[in-house]
Amino acid sequence: MAKQRVLLLGAHGETGETILEGLLKDGNFEVSALVQPSSVAKPTVQALAARNIPLVVADIKGPQDALVEAITGFDTIISTIGPASQLAQIPLVDAAAKAGIKRFVPCAFLTVCPPDGVMTLRSDKEKVYHRIWKHRLPYTIIDVGFWHQLSVFSVPSGKLNYGLLLDHKEIYGDGNTKSLLTDMRDIGSYVAKIIKDPRTLNQKVFTWSDELSQNDVIQMIVQKTGEKPVTKQIPDTEMYAAITRANAAIEKDASNVQAWILLTETEYNVSKHIRGDNTAAVAKYLGYLDAKELYPEFEPIPFEHFLDELVTGQAKKPYSVTNPDLIKMFHVGEDGLYALDTNTVV
Amino acid sequence: MAKQRVLLLGAHGETGETILEGLLKDGNFEVSALVQPSSVAKPTVQALAARNIPLVVADIKGPQDALVEAITGFDTIISTIGPASQLAQIPLVDAAAKAGIKRFVPCAFLTVCPPDGVMTLRSDKEKVYHRIWKHRLPYTIIDVGFWHQLSVFSVPSGKLNYGLLLDHKEIYGDGNTKSLLTDMRDIGSYVAKIIKDPRTLNQKVFTWSDELSQNDVIQMIVQKTGEKPVTKQIPDTEMYAAITRANAAIEKDASNVQAWILLTETEYNVSKHIRGDNTAAVAKYLGYLDAKELYPEFEPIPFEHFLDELVTGQAKKPYSVTNPDLIKMFHVGEDGLYALDTNTVV
Repeated sequence: MAKQRVLLLGAHGETGETILEGLLKDGNFEVSALVQPSSVAKPTVQALAARNIPLVVADIKGPQDALVEAITGFDTIISTIGPASQLAQIPLVDAAAKAGIKRFVPCAFLTVCPPDGVMTLRSDKEKVYHRIWKHRLPYTIIDVGFWHQLSVFSVPSGKLNYGLLLDHKEIYGDGNTKSLLTDMRDIGSYVAKIIKDPRTLNQKVFTWSDELSQNDVIQMIVQKTGEKPVTKQIPDTEMYAAITRANAAIEKDASNVQAWILLTETEYNVSKHIRGDNTAAVAKYLGYLDAKELYPEFEPIPFEHFLDELVTGQAKKPYSVTNPDLIKMFHVGEDGLYALDTNTVV
Repeated sequence: MAKQRVLLLGAHGETGETILEGLLKDGNFEVSALVQPSSVAKPTVQALAARNIPLVVADIKGPQDALVEAITGFDTIISTIGPASQLAQIPLVDAAAKAGIKRFVPCAFLTVCPPDGVMTLRSDKEKVYHRIWKHRLPYTIIDVGFWHQLSVFSVPSGKLNYGLLLDHKEIYGDGNTKSLLTDMRDIGSYVAKIIKDPRTLNQKVFTWSDELSQNDVIQMIVQKTGEKPVTKQIPDTEMYAAITRANAAIEKDASNVQAWILLTETEYNVSKHIRGDNTAAVAKYLGYLDAKELYPEFEPIPFEHFLDELVTGQAKKPYSVTNPDLIKMFHVGEDGLYALDTNTVV
């Protein structure tokens, strides 16, 4: 049987990389990378070329005809695109409909969250889905909960910090709300299964290994390290106030990246840890298929296993290869909320 | 077993009336009517009281506490509300979540159509659904295609006009696009089945008896009457131009009812007859359950049966009891597009 021809946007990014690995490991796919002209020179893109991944260079914001021509012949398009660029997918959706793409996987890869009124990032994604549905483009939406790699608290000795994006001490709300977790390395394995599966066509699917609260995670860290993370509890009132401040700052200056990070990360934390949206029960209410039920033979990496790797020095800091600059952009201010510099936001 | 306690908003309207009849005929429901204070004096509402339908008088735009108190204790709320008032349901959704309503049936009762980018009316409904999903309120969305009663062309002798809302001569597009039809009298029967059914909780369902094109309908009319409707074909380009004109008029004056009717009816016709959204295939793509598959034992009234009734003088003009004023508002201008007075719109 001919291999499925997949075109992957964002193959050089953190989510794209795991998807690329998952598809190549599976062996049933012929994968090309859709690259923006402005990104061709990036070392991470050149690394793809060096691995003999064919590059399809086409501007998703450019003329439709050229874009349609570039993507014609692919069976499946998978989009991973930066969180601030979700709406840039709309012309790609239009082109995919014209090109007769058989399955479009938009950039979801988010926690489970209602379509609107909770997370700006989720609402942006919904606008892209609306365009897909308007075209009746065959699609699959894949959400993945939150990554193991971003869900660990630091311990006083600092021994885990080598593998953490942040020296993370904050507990949002009471810490007892359960939240779905997936090891980022499993995203690609799940995507490979999902895009071969006719049951997932025109459906939403969520992946997960565990459903854990922040306090569950802390308890596991104590067990594994013998150290108790020094935590700071952030009440929900402060989080809602930060969302209001961030929105006001964005209203004043839409290019305020600090405000955008504060908004996005705080909305994530409200949704996951206060509202409790990111659970299997809510996913089923919202009409998702459960990847664990679809693929009972696949054993996703448990959070505990990742933690063992982290404790024994075998983990890798997220974004350290794909986007080292991003690591510098994220930090938590004295008030326990994300910001580059809270003074300029507040 | 205790009867399901249903609160019906809009019981005195055209869709609400069929739902009320369907629930009462079923016999397993205790139905009350949710009435706006401004509507209590209407003869159609007083007629409900005279039939011993309990009235719950509460302002859906009023204080939340009073609304929550008024609706607490009902199992199910069904909303039928005027097409221009869809967003007025949002405080009712908020109150239903607070009151612990076990199933909320928002005002869908539309043709099948993608959530956004095609029909303004459908986009408004989606905003209400977003609020439902934000609250995780248990719900069922029920769409019904288009009514038999609004899908007949007039014949030269005028013998069908007694039962038609409009002296309808227009064919939109080439007339060959299939479209789902439900007899309006069946809506209530279907609603009764659907709201008793655990399979439909947190799902979308579509009802239908037939999937017919405008040309299919004309052929049946010729067969039944021996008369050939004199039709006028409206090209899609004129329809899209009318939508642009209507939107411009609404932009200038949001209270322009003529422009609103032109927009709504033209968008309906584009969706049904040009895009072909209102089909079983599109409904399934959009994730709907098919009421015919759910209830194979129920035989909906075929379009042909309704046509027999109409031809033999047994039909009733839609809205003639519930809203005789509405009948005066609808007419088709010389250009074949809906308007009260196209001069003021164009």
